[in-house]
Amino acid sequence: MSAAQVEIETISTLNNNDPKLYPEMDLNQANILATGLNKKQLRVVNGLGSFMGSKEMVDLDGNKTKPQIHISEQPWTWENWYQKLNWLNITLVILIPLTGFLVAFSGLVPLKRNVLMFAVFYYGLGGISITAGYHRLWSHRAYNASWPLRLIYAFFGAASVEGSIKWWGHSHRIHHRYTDTPRDPYDARRGLFFSHMGWMIMKPNPKNKARADISDLNDDWIVRFQHRHYIIIMLLAAFVVPCLVCGYLFNDYLGGFIYAGVIRVFCIQQATFCINSMAHYIGTQPFDDRRTPRDNWLTALVTFGEGYHNFHHEFPTDYRNAIKWYQYDPTKILIYSTYLFGLANGLKKFPQNTIDQGILQQNQKKLNRVKQRIDWGPSLNDLPVWDHDDFEQELKTRSGLVIIGGIVHDITGYIKEHPGGENLIKSARGKDATKAFTGGVYRHSNAAHNVLAEFRVAVLKEKTNAAGLFVSRRGELYNKKTN
Amino acid sequence: MSAAQVEIETISTLNNNDPKLYPEMDLNQANILATGLNKKQLRVVNGLGSFMGSKEMVDLDGNKTKPQIHISEQPWTWENWYQKLNWLNITLVILIPLTGFLVAFSGLVPLKRNVLMFAVFYYGLGGISITAGYHRLWSHRAYNASWPLRLIYAFFGAASVEGSIKWWGHSHRIHHRYTDTPRDPYDARRGLFFSHMGWMIMKPNPKNKARADISDLNDDWIVRFQHRHYIIIMLLAAFVVPCLVCGYLFNDYLGGFIYAGVIRVFCIQQATFCINSMAHYIGTQPFDDRRTPRDNWLTALVTFGEGYHNFHHEFPTDYRNAIKWYQYDPTKILIYSTYLFGLANGLKKFPQNTIDQGILQQNQKKLNRVKQRIDWGPSLNDLPVWDHDDFEQELKTRSGLVIIGGIVHDITGYIKEHPGGENLIKSARGKDATKAFTGGVYRHSNAAHNVLAEFRVAVLKEKTNAAGLFVSRRGELYNKKTN
Ligand code: HEM
Ligand code: HEM
Ligand SMILES: [Fe+2]
Ligand SMILES: [Fe+2]
Ligand SMILES: [Fe+2]
Ligand SMILES: [Fe+2]
Repeated sequence: MSAAQVEIETISTLNNNDPKLYPEMDLNQANILATGLNKKQLRVVNGLGSFMGSKEMVDLDGNKTKPQIHISEQPWTWENWYQKLNWLNITLVILIPLTGFLVAFSGLVPLKRNVLMFAVFYYGLGGISITAGYHRLWSHRAYNASWPLRLIYAFFGAASVEGSIKWWGHSHRIHHRYTDTPRDPYDARRGLFFSHMGWMIMKPNPKNKARADISDLNDDWIVRFQHRHYIIIMLLAAFVVPCLVCGYLFNDYLGGFIYAGVIRVFCIQQATFCINSMAHYIGTQPFDDRRTPRDNWLTALVTFGEGYHNFHHEFPTDYRNAIKWYQYDPTKILIYSTYLFGLANGLKKFPQNTIDQGILQQNQKKLNRVKQRIDWGPSLNDLPVWDHDDFEQELKTRSGLVIIGGIVHDITGYIKEHPGGENLIKSARGKDATKAFTGGVYRHSNAAHNVLAEFRVAVLKEKTNAAGLFVSRRGELYNKKTN
Repeated sequence: MSAAQVEIETISTLNNNDPKLYPEMDLNQANILATGLNKKQLRVVNGLGSFMGSKEMVDLDGNKTKPQIHISEQPWTWENWYQKLNWLNITLVILIPLTGFLVAFSGLVPLKRNVLMFAVFYYGLGGISITAGYHRLWSHRAYNASWPLRLIYAFFGAASVEGSIKWWGHSHRIHHRYTDTPRDPYDARRGLFFSHMGWMIMKPNPKNKARADISDLNDDWIVRFQHRHYIIIMLLAAFVVPCLVCGYLFNDYLGGFIYAGVIRVFCIQQATFCINSMAHYIGTQPFDDRRTPRDNWLTALVTFGEGYHNFHHEFPTDYRNAIKWYQYDPTKILIYSTYLFGLANGLKKFPQNTIDQGILQQNQKKLNRVKQRIDWGPSLNDLPVWDHDDFEQELKTRSGLVIIGGIVHDITGYIKEHPGGENLIKSARGKDATKAFTGGVYRHSNAAHNVLAEFRVAVLKEKTNAAGLFVSRRGELYNKKTN
């Protein structure tokens, strides 16, 4: 992270050897574009539609009256702790579900098999409306969808009680734009609990307020309509529909409300929260490890395929989150199916070449880390350069010197260890054994070349070219001192 | 292979800029040492002890009388085919077992449960005497063993009917020294059948005769004794013992002979042959892929752990063949146990650092291959260098030029694709967007840097330093043309 920072600064410095020569892009104007502040902004937060977020974070006129030190910056005390919490969100994501569970455990409303089955089905419908609709369609524009499909996603997405499309897409774009920074609403660096629910039940610091351009969302009448009438749509989709369906079909209004309503909502919310918490914590990083997102099949399992989050953050507009056939990504399959049925089109993919580049670079990075932990013997660049006289001189006191590939080695300690026997290696002492070592007697393995490197003591002045060539086989670079 | 060859020759050439300066090791003398020809040689082949090999291949005086063109070099015809075959070996490894199977299938000698159990046990005893004794102890000197242990391995090793220790060790050292060359007795490049049994049932070409120093084996009285009395020891261990044991214990002399003798021998031979065939064909090459040996758990399963053959050829004097806890190498465990009981000592290991070096280098090699298959966009070194005038000039006809990191890109085709929207990327045209791209507006992912690289069209003369720095982040090297 900090290395990248330094790098950027160095680049900027170098870049400015003559600032007037090439006009720089105006950062202020660009940031206005990026936040959509150039457009007539419809309010992101709309009455109770704000919940799951915080009004202060998205309100345009939030700067007017605020205390000297914002409550989120004050230490926790017995006097102020309740002010630090967002009680509306606590009610919605903790207290209501808790009541639901209490009723369920009390046994007053027994769970019927049919109701359970409907709840599971409805859980899936609401969940996949979030992943295929809210997330990949609206937040990332990974494809285009016809209005009937959008209508379905807008209505049943509301059943998951995660805010309006508009609010959700806005936060989500901010999350992608500012991943792992203080402006990231679910900043994973602040801990698992914070990124899971903490960010929602505590009041955020308006200093970290961020905006993203959502003018494309505002252009969609379904998004606008859903946002304007969010409360009523949400109550209908999340509670009234399951209540009525279970009442009508199984004659169990209350069961429908508790199990297919309240408890189902709790489950789908928790599953979605996992993308902000688990998916930034547990798993592998095959594409890039500069940021926290991770690939994990377990997270994918509970989130209809969103668990391949390392891929997703690298290639956010790709309609797929998983690219291997054995990875679980039902959302991708749903999108592709709707495309086959003519309900969606313009499915975006990053080119496989670009994906392969990322994998390769990440693997190279891992390999470089391992490489640094291994002892490679002395580098030629650190060795003294001997001429013929030096060599003759040294030979008088050190009998174990052997020349291989223009490099002098002291193999004294290896004589007894030599897998090819003591005699051969002994008779190489004082000699140039390059040919013998590389095939004249025995073509040594790659391992033998590595063992050899540990015994290096000097480079021969007259053989620096040979030495450079010899070590290049191990991927070493020799900046010859003499020639 | 040929690349390595070229390399060696280049090194030799370079090395000889003044051949008299540093005395070269005498290759002839070294080769005499390596083959043990300086020592009074006891015969490797001793009467029938030759079987499994071929007299001509190891006999010191084999050069005296031979035909113009050796039979192995003549084409197969109806007249000569039987001369090309080694009938003694065919009898031993095919005809006798065949008779054994015929008797077994005829039902004349029913297989008793007890005999089967003894056969399996005796199979293991004979097999592990080959792997722990013949192979790791005697052929590779991977450790030292006390005489009682050596006696056990010498006797029960003979029960596997694979020749004397001396003959076996000699061939095996040649196999390691000349792996994948015509001198390799089981040269894997000649096909699976050849390396499995073909080499043994066809007469080899004496041109490919090779020798290895086995003076250390000749110094061991147990090896000498076993070699001198090989036929009688082999017949005793392989057939008489199982016959008598089964006769005495289970009153089934004939069953003991057929099942624990003939058929067991066939099985252990085939399993051993797999090391020459399968272990050079099927499996992975985690340590080095310049030569054919491969790691494969299946081969390991039938050969008491010898299937980790890629490791073994790289680190032949290591008493282990498998280094991971989950890999199957009972021979290693046996050797370690005998060490704990004071029957063995001096267990040799290659240093873990050396092993890690090999793994890393092999992984790097694989990665480099993948890297070459990927399109990385134009290299800076292939791009034209533009000065300020060039840039202004080009801008008149190509509006999509954007400067990032001192490099000019033509992003025309990407405007509609840009995940951050059309407006931002459009307003970067004609400008230096380095800061905006690297964090001033949005800190783009590694993937975005890769996408960007595809659009490169020129390097800016005044910004070559910045360009070099910018691409170094992708591991690219820029040899600046101007400065
Ligand atoms: C000077 C440093 C040397 C080192 C570090 C070294 C290392 C090794 C190693 C690790 C092996 C095991 C097989 C392999 O990994 O390829 C080996 C085997 C062998 N070496 Fe060397 N060696 C050296 C010098 C020489 C020289 C100068 C000669 C010949 C003149 C020689 C001849 C052989 C032979 C014949 C084998 C036996 C191959 C076999 O039977 O499997 N070595 N050496
Ligand atoms: C000139 C070539 C450019 C390329 C190839 C490019 C590529 C990309 C890519 C691949 C993404 C997806 C997210 C990621 O991979 O990080 C992205 C997102 C983005 N880009 Fe660019 N970009 C370019 C220029 C710019 C410029 C000049 C700006 C700003 C002035 C910009 C601003 C953004 C923003 C704001 C996002 C959205 C991030 C989000 O909401 O997730 N891009 N760009
Ligand atoms: Fe994320
Ligand atoms: Fe996303
Ligand atoms: Fe082998
Ligand atoms: Fe071996």
